[in-house]
Amino acid sequence: MLKPTRFGIISRLDKEEALNLVIQVINYLESRGIDYLLERELYNTLKDKVDIRKYKGKVMEDLKDVSHMLSIGGDGTVLRTSRLIGGNEIPIISIDMGTVGFLTEFSRDGVFKAIDMVIKGNYEIEKRTKCACIVKIFNEEGCRNKSNYHQKMLPDALNEVVLITKNPAKMVYFEVYINGEFVEEVRADGLIVSTPTGSTAYSLSAGGPILEPSMDAFVVVPICPFKLFSRPIVVDGNSEIVIRILKKSVLVVIDGTVEETLKKGDEVILRKSDSYTYFVKGRKFYGKLKKLEDYNKKLIPSQV
Amino acid sequence: MLKPTRFGIISRLDKEEALNLVIQVINYLESRGIDYLLERELYNTLKDKVDIRKYKGKVMEDLKDVSHMLSIGGDGTVLRTSRLIGGNEIPIISIDMGTVGFLTEFSRDGVFKAIDMVIKGNYEIEKRTKCACIVKIFNEEGCRNKSNYHQKMLPDALNEVVLITKNPAKMVYFEVYINGEFVEEVRADGLIVSTPTGSTAYSLSAGGPILEPSMDAFVVVPICPFKLFSRPIVVDGNSEIVIRILKKSVLVVIDGTVEETLKKGDEVILRKSDSYTYFVKGRKFYGKLKKLEDYNKKLIPSQV
Amino acid sequence: MLKPTRFGIISRLDKEEALNLVIQVINYLESRGIDYLLERELYNTLKDKVDIRKYKGKVMEDLKDVSHMLSIGGDGTVLRTSRLIGGNEIPIISIDMGTVGFLTEFSRDGVFKAIDMVIKGNYEIEKRTKCACIVKIFNEEGCRNKSNYHQKMLPDALNEVVLITKNPAKMVYFEVYINGEFVEEVRADGLIVSTPTGSTAYSLSAGGPILEPSMDAFVVVPICPFKLFSRPIVVDGNSEIVIRILKKSVLVVIDGTVEETLKKGDEVILRKSDSYTYFVKGRKFYGKLKKLEDYNKKLIPSQV
Amino acid sequence: MLKPTRFGIISRLDKEEALNLVIQVINYLESRGIDYLLERELYNTLKDKVDIRKYKGKVMEDLKDVSHMLSIGGDGTVLRTSRLIGGNEIPIISIDMGTVGFLTEFSRDGVFKAIDMVIKGNYEIEKRTKCACIVKIFNEEGCRNKSNYHQKMLPDALNEVVLITKNPAKMVYFEVYINGEFVEEVRADGLIVSTPTGSTAYSLSAGGPILEPSMDAFVVVPICPFKLFSRPIVVDGNSEIVIRILKKSVLVVIDGTVEETLKKGDEVILRKSDSYTYFVKGRKFYGKLKKLEDYNKKLIPSQV
Repeated sequence: MLKPTRFGIISRLDKEEALNLVIQVINYLESRGIDYLLERELYNTLKDKVDIRKYKGKVMEDLKDVSHMLSIGGDGTVLRTSRLIGGNEIPIISIDMGTVGFLTEFSRDGVFKAIDMVIKGNYEIEKRTKCACIVKIFNEEGCRNKSNYHQKMLPDALNEVVLITKNPAKMVYFEVYINGEFVEEVRADGLIVSTPTGSTAYSLSAGGPILEPSMDAFVVVPICPFKLFSRPIVVDGNSEIVIRILKKSVLVVIDGTVEETLKKGDEVILRKSDSYTYFVKGRKFYGKLKKLEDYNKKLIPSQV
Repeated sequence: MLKPTRFGIISRLDKEEALNLVIQVINYLESRGIDYLLERELYNTLKDKVDIRKYKGKVMEDLKDVSHMLSIGGDGTVLRTSRLIGGNEIPIISIDMGTVGFLTEFSRDGVFKAIDMVIKGNYEIEKRTKCACIVKIFNEEGCRNKSNYHQKMLPDALNEVVLITKNPAKMVYFEVYINGEFVEEVRADGLIVSTPTGSTAYSLSAGGPILEPSMDAFVVVPICPFKLFSRPIVVDGNSEIVIRILKKSVLVVIDGTVEETLKKGDEVILRKSDSYTYFVKGRKFYGKLKKLEDYNKKLIPSQV
Repeated sequence: MLKPTRFGIISRLDKEEALNLVIQVINYLESRGIDYLLERELYNTLKDKVDIRKYKGKVMEDLKDVSHMLSIGGDGTVLRTSRLIGGNEIPIISIDMGTVGFLTEFSRDGVFKAIDMVIKGNYEIEKRTKCACIVKIFNEEGCRNKSNYHQKMLPDALNEVVLITKNPAKMVYFEVYINGEFVEEVRADGLIVSTPTGSTAYSLSAGGPILEPSMDAFVVVPICPFKLFSRPIVVDGNSEIVIRILKKSVLVVIDGTVEETLKKGDEVILRKSDSYTYFVKGRKFYGKLKKLEDYNKKLIPSQV
Repeated sequence: MLKPTRFGIISRLDKEEALNLVIQVINYLESRGIDYLLERELYNTLKDKVDIRKYKGKVMEDLKDVSHMLSIGGDGTVLRTSRLIGGNEIPIISIDMGTVGFLTEFSRDGVFKAIDMVIKGNYEIEKRTKCACIVKIFNEEGCRNKSNYHQKMLPDALNEVVLITKNPAKMVYFEVYINGEFVEEVRADGLIVSTPTGSTAYSLSAGGPILEPSMDAFVVVPICPFKLFSRPIVVDGNSEIVIRILKKSVLVVIDGTVEETLKKGDEVILRKSDSYTYFVKGRKFYGKLKKLEDYNKKLIPSQV
């Protein structure tokens, strides 16, 4: 961990305050003589705001050139950062802009302290499980002819893989298998397979339990199940989960991004990814639950 | 209720067994000398199956020509029947084909008995509340200029009005008002406003309570709310519920049919409809809950 | 409503600040020349704090002597006040001491304004449904010999009637009938029948929906049901709900007070009470939901 | 696993059919020349039914004398068997009598096949995590003087440890800590800490998720929480969970048996037990979920 530090920087581009924080951060890094690179789109956006030639930071051409990644924005930016990093072992320093964030470990005000911690090598890394997702697409609808399909690897999910009805308010029919054992037929708007990290995101809204982020597990949660017995199931992290579409078309949504459309007969195969997302650890987990509640409260105007 | 009976007949068209039951029913009606008319599409479909000229039944040109409507199929057929009947006071005799149905009052085997009950005038009518739905569409996105919008009346809902995100797995932001009082800001996949009749349909899957069908009430249920406090709210049937879209686009889905797309700033106004749907009463309500459970059970293969 | 006003005063006795507010209130009433009477226990408690002979207020010997009842404390005090008032049409002016309260309509700071409103006759009354509760106790365990039982009327419930296992963590078996129709067999820790007023109290914790207080309805909610299908059921306010104990002993708890122990075979009959509880209206209903959330938030130390 | 087999036998004593199955089992074992011993109470009960002197089976004086334990009854009998076995590595062959059982691996009809499997050494063992429970009782109420308490080890829980209000329908206040980190203050009727095995028992009724029995985890589930945000939390099996009573008295119930009464200030310390419960594996886990649903269905009379 004490190799020379070179930061990559990624930011939300549509928020002035995030870009302003990026500028403060690069000024700070320059003043301390620390190397950094900027994600291409961020570099191009900054050009319109500052005289970029005065800065030493160039475009980040290769992930191998950075030791740590500063992610400035919210949970969405962290998800984008994790996807960009892919299988590389680059820890993320995740900074929020004041809004709720289970994936952000540092507040805007803590950014310089976080940078200093990293420069000095005085920090902990938290390793987060990702969910690998393979789709098996049959060439004819409903066909299960074993030789007549193609497979496709989708990006790993840091939060969750969602299979959701392509036709809003129309149920989809799934079959769920865990380690080859048939679990149940689910009729629902959709189905979530969440990592522990994602258990406080979409899965929670759909009625799933909270999992400590360090757990080696996944949680399978139906969305508005017709079958009333359906309950969230927590499975071991080494399980293979297979979901077969029995009826209607579904979208495969990974960390909020639609990745694929599947039809009757197609399958999704989910298991733990070989790679992890690494976070420089800031806040305590249970403290974040409080943050979420605070934020919930702010949603209600104080007119009462 | 003892005026001469003339049945209208509507049926599911894509199920052979439903069409076969229609043929049995019209043979029975002919044998008893009872008048009937056939919904146009059903008439056309039957032409390919039987020598339709041998039958007295003609196409139903005007709802005013029928005293009762036989609906043969499942809950979907009943919803279609209720929509077709609109504001007319024509009782529905709802027949299912063996599958679960909260809206069907008679089983396939009970169809002749039901017809006899009606002919003799020996039956009860159950009057079901519908939800009227007006959308207020502003001409510019987000604009609340009071003079710059148009209103549109959508069909009444027998089960529910659903406002659901147009972008699967992306939250929508709503403001909910009841009788002019601000209730809460909801961030969710969607929002259901259900009649008592609909409380055992989509609303139940989203976590809503069961309401006795005779109640004068609506239930407001968020779908996968981000705000964890959000709970189903049961409001008086004379309430006016206004929902304003704060962010993103939503689809307005009435009884399972997409009717409209709304954008930021648009509003939906919901209240009790002036007209009702009338059912010839067959099964007892709480007995139907058992039916649902039985059906749920059938979803699980007996391989275990 | 413009008859001469004479307040009765009831208060929580174990909180210094509630008693202090009582003293402020009686000073205010004396200064305005308004008559008032004190509940006996409150009178006796005040004697130790002030020179009670200096005050005009006497012990309230008869409910008929008061036109309005000031209830100072929290929800518990309001429940006690409602029980004391019984079938008399005496509106309650409910004051809280800063803690959460769905039954309190005015805050400590609003007490004088509330009193003034009442003196001037410038206020609205909200009428709340209560639940009447009759227990039918058979002389032998499990016996259903119709002539061998006695009936007993318990106090009306403003919030809810709870039937709960006498043996913590051991399930009870119930049969539930609504208007003579069998609904289901419930195996659970207990069962709640809540008024609309009580829907934001214990019923909510057990998973029940929120009902607007003006509704004419009851909600039946199982507590930790073994049968996973069990859902809250909202029934019309004119329904008769009968619950039969099939196994084990249960306590009948009305508005938080244990009233009776029942055994196998005994029955509870619930219906709308002939009398109501009347409140002088202060806060708006949906605003109180916000109060509850605020309070929830305070439960979490700000150490994070 | 191929050491000479000697069965211990435990049974439910209050059901004739369980005792009859015991007799069939010992006849079978005698006919096959296999050794067995009978739990003392079972031995004494059998004496009144059969001429016990004709049998070779004696009273089981020491657990060390048996290689496997036959548990005949339902889940309650298995919990009693697990408690009796304590820290000994004796696999349980759990037989149900036709009623639902997540802890029973074999049906009544499969008992001889199960015995044969064991005799031949042709079986799998499933190792189940137990929860160890230490109570820390302070000598004065509410006191946290560190030197003024005593600790007590309660029996391990195979299913769950429940802390529940001693006063039915009155909330208890708890503080929950996980690995020294404060999680939240809970106001509820009680709190469940469940093993994966227990996740399909009481925890499920209180709203907890289903955990695969092989997981290394616990789930913390509040019972009727006042704080509506409260959600089930799944924690790593190596966590230490500490619960402090803030208000009122609670009962500590382990696998359905009341073990201790705690007062304000007292603490419960929960962690994984050093010992496990071992089961001879019969049914598949997800198949048992179906059994539960079947059973649920039977609770409803078919009168409808």
